[in-house]
Amino acid sequence: MFEDKDQSRTPVSQLGEFGLIEHLTRKFELSQETSVKGVGDDAAVISSEKNKHIVVTTDMLVEGVHFDLSYMPLKHLGYKAVVVNLSDVYAMNAEATQITISMALSNRFTVEAVEAIYDGIQTAAKYYNIDVVGGDTSSSVSGLILSITALGNVDKDKITYRSGAGINDLLVVTGDLGAAYLGLQVLEREKKVFEVNPNAQPDLEPYSYLVERQLKPEARKDIPKLMSDLDILPTAMIDISDGLSSEVLHICKQSKVGCNLYEDKIPLDPQVISTCEEFNLDSTTIALSGGEDYELLFTIRQEDFPKLKANPHFTVIGHITEEKEGVHLVTRDDTKIPLIARGWNALTEE
Amino acid sequence: MFEDKDQSRTPVSQLGEFGLIEHLTRKFELSQETSVKGVGDDAAVISSEKNKHIVVTTDMLVEGVHFDLSYMPLKHLGYKAVVVNLSDVYAMNAEATQITISMALSNRFTVEAVEAIYDGIQTAAKYYNIDVVGGDTSSSVSGLILSITALGNVDKDKITYRSGAGINDLLVVTGDLGAAYLGLQVLEREKKVFEVNPNAQPDLEPYSYLVERQLKPEARKDIPKLMSDLDILPTAMIDISDGLSSEVLHICKQSKVGCNLYEDKIPLDPQVISTCEEFNLDSTTIALSGGEDYELLFTIRQEDFPKLKANPHFTVIGHITEEKEGVHLVTRDDTKIPLIARGWNALTEE
Repeated sequence: MFEDKDQSRTPVSQLGEFGLIEHLTRKFELSQETSVKGVGDDAAVISSEKNKHIVVTTDMLVEGVHFDLSYMPLKHLGYKAVVVNLSDVYAMNAEATQITISMALSNRFTVEAVEAIYDGIQTAAKYYNIDVVGGDTSSSVSGLILSITALGNVDKDKITYRSGAGINDLLVVTGDLGAAYLGLQVLEREKKVFEVNPNAQPDLEPYSYLVERQLKPEARKDIPKLMSDLDILPTAMIDISDGLSSEVLHICKQSKVGCNLYEDKIPLDPQVISTCEEFNLDSTTIALSGGEDYELLFTIRQEDFPKLKANPHFTVIGHITEEKEGVHLVTRDDTKIPLIARGWNALTEE
Repeated sequence: MFEDKDQSRTPVSQLGEFGLIEHLTRKFELSQETSVKGVGDDAAVISSEKNKHIVVTTDMLVEGVHFDLSYMPLKHLGYKAVVVNLSDVYAMNAEATQITISMALSNRFTVEAVEAIYDGIQTAAKYYNIDVVGGDTSSSVSGLILSITALGNVDKDKITYRSGAGINDLLVVTGDLGAAYLGLQVLEREKKVFEVNPNAQPDLEPYSYLVERQLKPEARKDIPKLMSDLDILPTAMIDISDGLSSEVLHICKQSKVGCNLYEDKIPLDPQVISTCEEFNLDSTTIALSGGEDYELLFTIRQEDFPKLKANPHFTVIGHITEEKEGVHLVTRDDTKIPLIARGWNALTEE
């Protein structure tokens, strides 16, 4: 399912490691001002800018744990691996500038398969205007492992940590939540149907948004710029990779505050609502625990509220309280339930 | 062989991913001036210095491909994973400052096993005076994968690429070559003996240097500083990870020059010579193709020769020629043999 039957199949060993890296990286041109030297030396070289800090983040995607190649096309995998990392850069209120890629793959992968992954990486690099400045490709005993490190920069006085939320700040989220997780449920259901009946034609049309959020998520590159245009400096910020509840708890723990999160404010796409009904799932649970949304969650001072209240990118979903009041979900019937992290956990959900 | 029988065994799932990262990184304190924020947010934050460039390099170590846990203790693995990356930073004539770590491990690893790896990482971080500023731990379907990204900085006018070698420059190498590869041969032989007779007590004493070079290699942190003290700016530099011949060819290709490398000048430790005799191996071949030495190979202008000629860290092993003359090994009997890359290749030696 993940390879065209008629494409040519070149074993990786035919090119060798150096040949492969050269082959894959020759298309990568440097466009960032701060990229002094990219692929091809012992290390990449980045110039630093006055009054800016550099941010660095790293993430590893492991086949069979973070992705399933039976429904994740390789090009999408490359794209998503970049997005996942950039999301962390934007969550620092920074601009993403460079990435490095480490890849290990077993001998069931051909040069064409690796090219498809790099195609996705390149597409993401272009879209997000970042440079690929380093690469390392080697064998694995089984499966595919992609490790990406992303770099970015940010004005020293604009950097936003998880730890800055203050009492009475408003809790704001971008976009909508839960779609990526439901997209995964749809794809897994279709995979099971396909295994039973390989001639079944899946109709993914009613789930198009969900599937796209799962297979081709986007990171919120627009938000740091938009915030700057709106003259808002978030007091704390985090990206939503493990589910809303987990991220709210991170901000509260690191800021030493409590929070009331309002169930009826959580932004949901109509497809999320209808698919939750179809799958007999609770949409609030999905939004809280689904994960992989790659939206941004942040806090702002109350006086900044007028600056973003009319903006369709943002939804105010709660407010910060004193630490001793705890972290709660306020349900539609006005009950307060303590929030617990049930976000997707890469280590326990084996 | 890689775990004590009597140590406690805590399954990783008991702590969960966040718990594990917290547990492992709580010991890591920041000591570098440029480390603004380490582990615990979406990204690490690094301050940049005026007139300096930042260098970034990444490397992945895969169980069964790059290491064998039956003779590589986990602590040594953590240490070596750091060293491999720092070596690339020093090869840019830079000072290493920070690393990030991504680790994927299957459920056969306990918390204690992961702690042993982090112990090794921490030991290396202390010795090389670098900060661990980011970490990411997840599951793998099989085996252990370690991906490390290292950062460093260097004065803009001191950065050394592979591409700067000029005609008549001298080719210089630090330390001695071939020992790490022979150490691996010794360990693999002992593993086979152990498999046949688990009660056999290996006597590794005659191979102590070789085994140490394989299991606990060091990167040449001292060289950039020493060069600076000697007032030498190398014209090109690379670290020796894949074998001398491969690295000489990299410098020549990227500098568009040729080279004569003298067999009788290649520095060899007495244990390398005696073990080559015992194993019936050609010591020159081992030095040229062995790999994993993590010494530095560089070129200097002829006028800088007096500055390093008495220094025991350095050996002049050749000189740069015009590109059209090619890259040759000049043997002990004065024959010129074209040099080919036979360095260890992670993709073809599956």
